[in-house]
Order: sequence, then structure tokens, then C-alpha cells
Amino acid sequence: MSKAITKRADDYSQWYNDLIIKAGLADYSAVRGCMVIKPYGYALWENMRDALDKMFKDTGHVNAYFPLFVPKSLFEAEEKNAEGFAKECAVVTHYRLKTDPNQPGKLMVDPDARLEEELVVRPTSEAIIWNTYKNWIQSYRDLPILVNQWANVVRWEMRTRLFLRTAEFLWQEGHTAHATQQEAVAEARQMLEVYASFAEDWMALPVVKGVKSESERFAGAVDTYCIEALMQDGKALQAGTSHFLGKNFAKAFEAKISDRNNQLDYVWATSWGVSTRLIGALVMAHSDDEGLVLPPKIAPLQVVIVPIFKGQEDLDVLNQQIHPLMAELKAMGIRVKYDDTDNNRPGWKFAEYEMKGVPVRIALGARDLANGVAEVARRDTKEKQTLPLAGLATQVQQLLEQIQTNLYQRALAFRQANTRPANTWDEFVQLLDNAGGFVSAHWDGTAQTEEKIKELTKATIRCIPLDAAEEAGTCILSGQPSNRRVLFARAY
Amino acid sequence: MSKAITKRADDYSQWYNDLIIKAGLADYSAVRGCMVIKPYGYALWENMRDALDKMFKDTGHVNAYFPLFVPKSLFEAEEKNAEGFAKECAVVTHYRLKTDPNQPGKLMVDPDARLEEELVVRPTSEAIIWNTYKNWIQSYRDLPILVNQWANVVRWEMRTRLFLRTAEFLWQEGHTAHATQQEAVAEARQMLEVYASFAEDWMALPVVKGVKSESERFAGAVDTYCIEALMQDGKALQAGTSHFLGKNFAKAFEAKISDRNNQLDYVWATSWGVSTRLIGALVMAHSDDEGLVLPPKIAPLQVVIVPIFKGQEDLDVLNQQIHPLMAELKAMGIRVKYDDTDNNRPGWKFAEYEMKGVPVRIALGARDLANGVAEVARRDTKEKQTLPLAGLATQVQQLLEQIQTNLYQRALAFRQANTRPANTWDEFVQLLDNAGGFVSAHWDGTAQTEEKIKELTKATIRCIPLDAAEEAGTCILSGQPSNRRVLFARAY
Repeated sequence: MSKAITKRADDYSQWYNDLIIKAGLADYSAVRGCMVIKPYGYALWENMRDALDKMFKDTGHVNAYFPLFVPKSLFEAEEKNAEGFAKECAVVTHYRLKTDPNQPGKLMVDPDARLEEELVVRPTSEAIIWNTYKNWIQSYRDLPILVNQWANVVRWEMRTRLFLRTAEFLWQEGHTAHATQQEAVAEARQMLEVYASFAEDWMALPVVKGVKSESERFAGAVDTYCIEALMQDGKALQAGTSHFLGKNFAKAFEAKISDRNNQLDYVWATSWGVSTRLIGALVMAHSDDEGLVLPPKIAPLQVVIVPIFKGQEDLDVLNQQIHPLMAELKAMGIRVKYDDTDNNRPGWKFAEYEMKGVPVRIALGARDLANGVAEVARRDTKEKQTLPLAGLATQVQQLLEQIQTNLYQRALAFRQANTRPANTWDEFVQLLDNAGGFVSAHWDGTAQTEEKIKELTKATIRCIPLDAAEEAGTCILSGQPSNRRVLFARAY
Repeated sequence: MSKAITKRADDYSQWYNDLIIKAGLADYSAVRGCMVIKPYGYALWENMRDALDKMFKDTGHVNAYFPLFVPKSLFEAEEKNAEGFAKECAVVTHYRLKTDPNQPGKLMVDPDARLEEELVVRPTSEAIIWNTYKNWIQSYRDLPILVNQWANVVRWEMRTRLFLRTAEFLWQEGHTAHATQQEAVAEARQMLEVYASFAEDWMALPVVKGVKSESERFAGAVDTYCIEALMQDGKALQAGTSHFLGKNFAKAFEAKISDRNNQLDYVWATSWGVSTRLIGALVMAHSDDEGLVLPPKIAPLQVVIVPIFKGQEDLDVLNQQIHPLMAELKAMGIRVKYDDTDNNRPGWKFAEYEMKGVPVRIALGARDLANGVAEVARRDTKEKQTLPLAGLATQVQQLLEQIQTNLYQRALAFRQANTRPANTWDEFVQLLDNAGGFVSAHWDGTAQTEEKIKELTKATIRCIPLDAAEEAGTCILSGQPSNRRVLFARAY
């Protein structure tokens, strides 16, 4: 490694940026707020995407693709949605460039090629999709529509951060249409469960499932369900949302069905999405001062083998052991790399693969070979152990499972230790200022109080947890009665 | 089916559009020239994408993702490339909408949110990618870069057709950087071979591999290799291109390396791409007046089972045979659907799955069951046969392979029958007007003659085939000497 990264304790934010760049996940680009997702970062995204895609298909969804552009007249049809996104829209106004007569070799926008109607680059696709669905839907027999789209979207954010908040990002957006409210709500809840399972089982990221307060809802939704995760610096991160949209978009786009009794009625909708932001969450939840720590189930590389050798003769001997081991690991479906390059020393390689978060490293030299063993290091705990070569592949497979479980348990323990009740305003403020994490507190249910708390503390209501028990109490700020605690935190 | 589609003989172009719509591959959208890729069409694209992606990875490539937007100053850096695409660029000029004070509830582009520099929506990504690569490349050790991107691109075409030519389309674009010319040319040629293998082995689409004449080259390329296919109406279709870009982009973006002798030099580049246009080629190569005909290897559904029954009791009996058959087919990795719905008659279902191009249909009723047989129909030839239920899954698997082979052989025979030599101008014109297809003829190698031929006949040089034999002759138009034949056709 050319140099180490900033330590978390010194500057958490700088640590994050250093890590993203040094581990080769992403890079800044020449376009304001847009990033380049580098091959290693994209491989991680591919693994996440493939796992999610399978979960979507297993729950009956199919993929489709809708236009990147939304004509302004469609974009503004659902007023709340339009209002919510209007301030961050990239807008296409022209369809041609021409040579600039005043600057040889330069181009300029051709003023004669102005679009009659401006096109919004999709910040989300409800409008363009519902304008399509209205043509697909005539009767209840055409329902449900269970469609997902993998796409890029653009939201012109002023303050951007790699993965966490970028002007363009990759995501999936599910858009479903249903004959009944009950079915639509069940769909929105089901997808929340899918997201929670994905976060916990694949990303080893424990999440709180909840519902957003009115002011944190998606623009145009009746209810926004969410999964919220806790980062190592004690800040929360919204990792996915699933919206029950009621009839809002059906009304805006006149999507009606005749039901079994031949009555015309608007249909019910949901939408749900997760994005490359999840990669930011993943990094901040597990990684350390030496680099990335990746859960084996989505790590681009799960195992790296580093031979310790001097010269080709040494290597040839080691290869006799390592090549069959590689084959065995691959046959088990393990993503393994053999780094037998000779331009870097083993110590350099060790640091490099630690930076990249490869869960298991196997090192093997002549002496190990003589003893019939290898050194196996796990990235999560940095523990090393000497294991017999006989049966090593199976041991490694088990170790990968242990690492996956350990990462989840560690993050869960961290979240549990950093989720605290506050019963008074002073306690609330002190917890936020000194400890961070989730603060579970009573709130009177009004947007005014929520806004005031945000002004005073920068903390927002992350969600009303779905499993929140009924409990009589009084709002930490207003003292008004409340019947359940909600989860506050400062958030990304 | 609600109604049949136009017949090819009556109106080939209308047949194509009808088919795309009725088979559920795509739909028009509210955005000029942009289409909606419907779930069935997208499933087809997913199968094509996955097969290609594996071929790219098997040849050492990795995926990444680069910004959608290209700042104008980068876009114009490589002049020929910029000139080639300037006339079809969608341009983002503003980053915010605001409420229109004159029209309540409507939005307008906020004039205060004008971008300092306009952003071009990528029509292709050489510029943004080479502006990134220049930072990744310092020494020959950083090479080769072998990166592919799956993305959407926008080219503001004036006359659009579903899949064949749309303002926005999905594609992959490979962008590689190399230390030597030889290596870059080998890469461009390798990817041409990958495309040809994909077209022939997966799409059952025979292609001619060749190189473009200078005037048909990609803007900014030194050489453009291509695969050309022949459609049933005798018109050619460019199905994929692979470009040797020389040092053009490295020079435009100052991408240099120090070589083994510490000399600074520009690096060599290639780019290569195929798009959703391939779906248009697939449809036009194999389908018929009853609907789609899909090669089994990429068909979203390979087999459909239609039970012939009256009432649930009948169905229960059939299910005892069909459920294990389904399980067996699935275990073989065959994509099979069991359509046991009772809202449509078997005849309707037969027509529907013919329209959708499902390669094999199995129909099974009580009498068949009593005889221990099923009716198996293949989509390509419409042949039906009665096959014993015992061993049926294996028979179906073999049938799928036969269909794949037959489609390729049929298309190859068609192309061979429709590739003809012309030795005089009259012969050339008559072949184009009366027979269509590829016409193999001598050309004097000049752009002027090529342009003149295009004006007179609407035929273009599709390619100079890589396997074209040296042969002395005279140009069909100018009579000037020529040393090999090139392939002409009218084209999509």
C-alpha cells in the first residue's frame, strides 16, 4: 500500500472517503456529484443486485425497463411527488449541439434544437411508469402488476458523498399495481421484509423495520416503510424504503379498473427501492482502520491465497499443493484468487487484501508445506490460525460462514449497545451529543414538534418501529401524551 | 388472441411492429422515440445480457459504471467523435424546476438554475471514460484495462423503430486500454469473435464478420470491425461493432504511460458494443406470421405445458402426471411454465404461446394420459408429434437442442441463398431491386464511389468480409481495378 488511510477516531468522514478510494470501490468523476463505480465496487454491487433480484423474482416480480426521461407534463401530474423532487431535477432542454462559430473546434447547444417540452431525467419513475400502466390496466384481471426496474436515476444533490449521496446513482425501483388496498399494503410490507432479510442475511447489517413519520414520507406516498441501520459513528442510515402509494398515482394518471361488479375504480399502488447507497452503509457498518471488511456472501473475493516463495522453483513446489486447493475451493462455489505475482512482497499483498476486505487469507510457504499446514487469517477479527492442509477447503468454507455470522452479531451487539431510551429532554440531548446511536423516546405525533426537535438537535425520527410496544408516556419536548416510543438519531 | 398480426408478405414493417407489441416485447412510451421494454422483452434481454456478460468475463473483462453525463468540454475533446454524435445529443442545461407563477400546479425550468457547463447525456462513453482512464494509467504495469459497462445511452434519432432505432437504448460498451497497437488490435478482433459466437451460438443468427469502409467507421475509430446479419426481407442489419481506436482518445485526454524504457507514449484503445437492437435482429431473422420464433437458449420460456381438461377433477388427474414432469424439466435447468388457468381455452393458449415464440409446447389430456403419451409441438416448424410420457423430459431436452440448431441452419441457408455476386452495374441494381440480400461486388475503394452507389441504389457497403479472398476485378460503378469483393446491401 502506498500509504495508510485516516483512522476512524481521527476523522470518521475522511476515513470513509479514503477507504472508498484506496480499496478501489469508486472514484470521483469530472461530473459534479457523479462518481465512477470502479470494477471492485461494481463487482460488489453485482453480487448485491443478483441476490436481491432473485428475492424479487422469488416473490413473483418481473423486470422491465422504462424511459430515462419524463416529459415535464407527466412529471408534474402527481403534485406532491413533483413538488418533492422539483428542486433536484436535471432537465434536458435541447437535442442537438452544433459547431460554435466563434470558437473553432468547440461545440455549442444549438438554439434551433430546443425541445417543445422539457424532459426531466428521472429522479424516480412513478410518473413515467404510471403513465404506462394506465394503458395496461383495464380490468381486475390485469392485476396485480408486479414489476421491478434496475436503472440509473439522477437527483441534483448539492452536497454529495461517494455512494451515500450522489447526483446519479444506480438502484432498483419496484412499481406495483393492485385491485385492493389490502393487497397493496401487504405488498409494501412484504418488500420491506425482503429488504430486511437482504440487509441482515447478505450484508450482515441488522436493521430496524419501521414506518416513517408524515414529514419523512416519500413525496406522494400514503405510508413509507423503511429499514434503518446504525453506522459505527453512531449515526443512522436509511437503507431502503417501501411505499404504500394509495390511489395517488392512479388518480393522477387515470388508472382505473372495472371490478368484479363492473364498477370503475382507481387502483392501488406501491413502490420500493434500494440503491448503491447500500454500499456506503456496508462500508460504514463493518470496516476498520486497515480497510474494508466485507461479509463473505457478497464479497467479490472470498478467499485469497498468497504463496511465500523465493524464485520459480519454490513456487513450483507450492503450486503442487495450491492448484488442487484452488480447484477444490472453486468447486465449492467459493470466489478465490491466487496471487502468485512476484512484483510485490507478501507483506504488501497482505495489506492490500486487508484494504480490500477479502474475508479469508491463506498464506503458504515451504516450511508450512513441510509441516502440512497453512496459515489462515480471517479479516473480521484479524485472528490467524495454522490449519492442516488436509481438509482445508472445508475448514475455509466453515470459516466463511462463521465470519458472516460474526459480522452480523458484532453489528447487532453494537446497535443494541447504542440504542438507548431517553425519558427527559436533557437525557435526550445528552445521549445525542455524547453517545450518539438510536434514542428511543416518546413524541407527541405532531410535525411541529418533530421539526423543533430537528432544529434543536439535528436528530430526526428515523422510524416508528413496527414492533414498538404500546406504552403510555409523554413527549420529550412538548410533554404531550404519547402512546409509543419512536426512534430518533442523527442520520446520513 | 384478440386479433392476428399483419402478414410479412403484406407489409413487413407493419408485421414487425405488430409482433413486438402483440408478443409483449415492448411498447411505445410518452417520450418521443423512447420505448418501454416490457417484462417479456426484458426477460429476453436478461438472457442475452447474462450470456454475453459471461463471455466478457471469461475473456478477462470486468464491469464498472461511469457517469450518464458528459460535460461538453470533455465531449468535444476528441473532435471526430464529437462531430459524429453532436447532432443527436440530448443536452441537460438546468438542474431545477420551480412552480410556474403563471400556471398554478404547473412547473417550469428555473432560469436561475442554469448549469455553468452543459451536460451531454452519453450517446457513447469514450470521452467520460478516457477522462477517467488517464488518471488510472501511469505505467505499462497499469495496463491492460479491460472494462465493460452495461448502461443506457441516448441518441436523438429522428426516425425511430422499436428496438431497431430508439432515442434511448440499453447496451454494453467495452472500453480497453493497451500498451501496444498489436494488443489493442487483437482485443478488437477478439471481441468481434465473441460477438459472432454469441450471435451464432445463442441467437442462432449467422453473421458475416468484416471491417467497415472508412465512411461507415465509428466516429473516432481507426478501424471498425462488425458483424452483419441478413433479415428475412433481404435487408442487412449491423448487429455489433468492435473498434480499434488507435491513440485517438489517449491523445485527446492525454493518457500516457512510461514504457519499459521510461519513454512516455500514448496508449492504445478499443471500444465495442452491442445493444437492445439485437432483439430487433432476432425477431426479424426467425419469426413468422403467427408470431415470435425464439431460439431455445435465450427464450424466456423454453417449454409450456397446456393441460386439456374439463373441471377440477380432470385437472387433478392430469396434475399427477404433469407435476413430476415439471419438476423433472426444471431439474434439467429448462425454463418451463405450466398454464393450468381455466379462463382461456386450449386453442387460445396455443395461439398465445405461438405468438410469444415458446419453442416447445406440450399438450396433455385425459385420452393422452390413458395412452401414456403427450402431444409435443415445436414452434420453429410447427410439427406435432405424439411422444410417450416415459422419458419425455429427455426427449424435450433433445428437441430444444434440435430447434436451436435448426433455426441457425435455416437462417444460414437463407443467407447463403441470398448472398449473390454481381459483376456488372446492371446486375448489381437488378439484384438489389428484385432479390435483395447481400450482393458481393468489386469496389474501387474510394469514398466517392461508395457515396455514389448509395445515392443511386440506397445500398451501403456492409463490410469488407474478413475472409474475403484476393480476387482481381473491376469496380461495378467506376470500372477501376479492385482486388477483393465487398458486401453490399440495403440495411436497417
